[in-house]
Amino acid sequence: MIPDFATTVAQRLDSLAQISEEDGGLTRTFASPAMRRANELVGEWMREAGMSIRTDAIGNLIGHYSGATPDAKILLLGSHLDTVRDAGRFDGALGVLVAIACVQHLHETKTRPPFAIEVVGLADEEGLRFQSTYLGSRAMAGTFNTEDLKRTDVHGVTMAEAIRGFDGNPDAIGTARMDASRLIGYVEVHIEQGPVLERKNLAVGIVSAIAGQTRVRISFIGEAGHAGTIPMDLRRDSLCAAAEFVLATESLAQARSGLVATVGEISARPGAGNVIPGETILSLDVRHPDDAVRRGACADLKSCADKIAAGRSVIVNWETVHEIVSVACERRLMSLLESATKRYQNEVPILSSGAGHDAAAMAAICPVAMLFVRCKGGISHNPAEFASEADIGVAVAVMNDFLKLLAAESE
Amino acid sequence: MIPDFATTVAQRLDSLAQISEEDGGLTRTFASPAMRRANELVGEWMREAGMSIRTDAIGNLIGHYSGATPDAKILLLGSHLDTVRDAGRFDGALGVLVAIACVQHLHETKTRPPFAIEVVGLADEEGLRFQSTYLGSRAMAGTFNTEDLKRTDVHGVTMAEAIRGFDGNPDAIGTARMDASRLIGYVEVHIEQGPVLERKNLAVGIVSAIAGQTRVRISFIGEAGHAGTIPMDLRRDSLCAAAEFVLATESLAQARSGLVATVGEISARPGAGNVIPGETILSLDVRHPDDAVRRGACADLKSCADKIAAGRSVIVNWETVHEIVSVACERRLMSLLESATKRYQNEVPILSSGAGHDAAAMAAICPVAMLFVRCKGGISHNPAEFASEADIGVAVAVMNDFLKLLAAESE
Repeated sequence: MIPDFATTVAQRLDSLAQISEEDGGLTRTFASPAMRRANELVGEWMREAGMSIRTDAIGNLIGHYSGATPDAKILLLGSHLDTVRDAGRFDGALGVLVAIACVQHLHETKTRPPFAIEVVGLADEEGLRFQSTYLGSRAMAGTFNTEDLKRTDVHGVTMAEAIRGFDGNPDAIGTARMDASRLIGYVEVHIEQGPVLERKNLAVGIVSAIAGQTRVRISFIGEAGHAGTIPMDLRRDSLCAAAEFVLATESLAQARSGLVATVGEISARPGAGNVIPGETILSLDVRHPDDAVRRGACADLKSCADKIAAGRSVIVNWETVHEIVSVACERRLMSLLESATKRYQNEVPILSSGAGHDAAAMAAICPVAMLFVRCKGGISHNPAEFASEADIGVAVAVMNDFLKLLAAESE
Repeated sequence: MIPDFATTVAQRLDSLAQISEEDGGLTRTFASPAMRRANELVGEWMREAGMSIRTDAIGNLIGHYSGATPDAKILLLGSHLDTVRDAGRFDGALGVLVAIACVQHLHETKTRPPFAIEVVGLADEEGLRFQSTYLGSRAMAGTFNTEDLKRTDVHGVTMAEAIRGFDGNPDAIGTARMDASRLIGYVEVHIEQGPVLERKNLAVGIVSAIAGQTRVRISFIGEAGHAGTIPMDLRRDSLCAAAEFVLATESLAQARSGLVATVGEISARPGAGNVIPGETILSLDVRHPDDAVRRGACADLKSCADKIAAGRSVIVNWETVHEIVSVACERRLMSLLESATKRYQNEVPILSSGAGHDAAAMAAICPVAMLFVRCKGGISHNPAEFASEADIGVAVAVMNDFLKLLAAESE
């Protein structure tokens, strides 16, 4: 089955990529007309695969494939159908289409596992339209914040209005919550969005945890001055302090296994070639699957910033703007994925995910697991995003075997 | 005489500061209506000091005070009357008003030195309107580039049109050139715009040279990537390379006497908190009174950038965008200023100027010298710019004694 389904998935990824709200690139935001068309198309494929479909109050598309008995528990498979601006074809969509392919195989072979399967096409993971995160999966997990309904997009449309225009019901988001007592878990296939599998020359890997994240806004405040007239020994250059911090951050992250720390934004003020920077502002992004390691690193980096500032007689401000705890994948689901993967690869790499995923939100209501698929150059959020048909085939095969193993265990 | 003239100069600085093209701040650009009013007011003060006045083809205001004989040589004193945006009161104007005060003293005491004095109120040093430099002094020195007449301001007005509207003659800029054979030299009083005199607790200092300057645009090109998914050891972070370079620049400049080197602008692209910077662009400004030292420093910094880039597998581009050679002040004029200053200070500091001045352009046609006046906190190009009346008094006294010493030598 692998080659056929892989070709189908690849063709469907191409078809879905045509559904965009912008010409010349793929952009599909929450509750947009493009999203409606995507849901219609994916809904068609779900029906073909023997599923009954519904959409919930926030606009998540759900395909239901019944199990052997009416009271069977439910396994959730899927990912999100929204995209970033000028996106690639694989981020999100791949997980939904691989899940549909697996169900289609069950349907074609007239197989009813001892559990029902619901394939979810989540309405919003990227949060592009409302600068939010996980709207779809948070609604499904019962952790949606109704305050977010007041958020507005760039055209001034509120989230509540957008949901209503999408035939959803902003007043009943609570009804989108899944019944936890019936859920076996949520398993998501997703491109890695990083270079590790490519370096290992392996098609797929299993996620152990979705890393926790701390985002900090740091400013070093020294003294601006004329670049020609202030001698070096009388300067309090905020950019030099910031440069020390950038390198200290790099060294610290290099020295701690699994830690990533990034300064992605920097701005020196006033920002003229002939003026010593009086203030330099940095972003800091720190991630690790173990929250204690992440918090320890942040504390050490803060001490480091304080020490740099003191040594240069500049002021440092440290503002933690965002913090997300890590989410562990469930051992049993991981173990089944591992057994399935072993049939196709000599090595089964266990990775942590440095990027956030719907699975992180779904973990609030059920066990979660993720299968990563190699992507070229680790490139994502970019039209150059690419996963090969061969690797997609491995993902379909692994998920198919995973379902068989889970069925065998459940009987 | 010192206290009286210092008070007059301070009051006149206040009056001139009222003449602005913007409400709530001092901005006076080349050939503007505000500049016309400034020239009228300063012209009045010149006449009161016994000078005949004229304006040249580019709009420089010139007050002539005859010497003892009609064929006497000419000593030029002065500075510029234009300003930066939201300027201080002292930059430029101080040099013109101190010169007028000195001539007024000669006039009041009915003294005719063996040389004529021309006080120049130069039309454009800052170059705010046409993104140029030294328009006034370059016209006077015969180094004006007539190609610049085509430059346009933000309203699309060409420099030629602006000069015509100011009753100048863009077709005859050459006539503004002074007769070099008649010039003794150009002596300019200016605020230091740096903190050295303040640190030494001295009112004035003598400039040895106007530093040469190199401006470079440097870009480090690595590879952008997801801040969460790319392990530290697989990164080619352009900002980390740039940070190394910023610190290397600081260290190198600290280690070489009189050298200043500044990274004033930095921009990391794409510039998002969750993306590893793929490209980081820096400005570099290097200055030293000795051109060989400056050039050596630039060569060493370029090697340094190459080494950093090679060590990190990133690319570095190095583009020298601007280079100005240093201008030495003349020993004889410096020596006379030194003798005059010794009467008022125990120590006579000899400074190089890290900022550019009209004297640098005037050096093309005659010997030049400069007297720096302490300014509070080294602050300039800012409404907080300040020089005390006491220090202005010292500057007037020193220049007055300088004229006496020069007269004695000339007889």
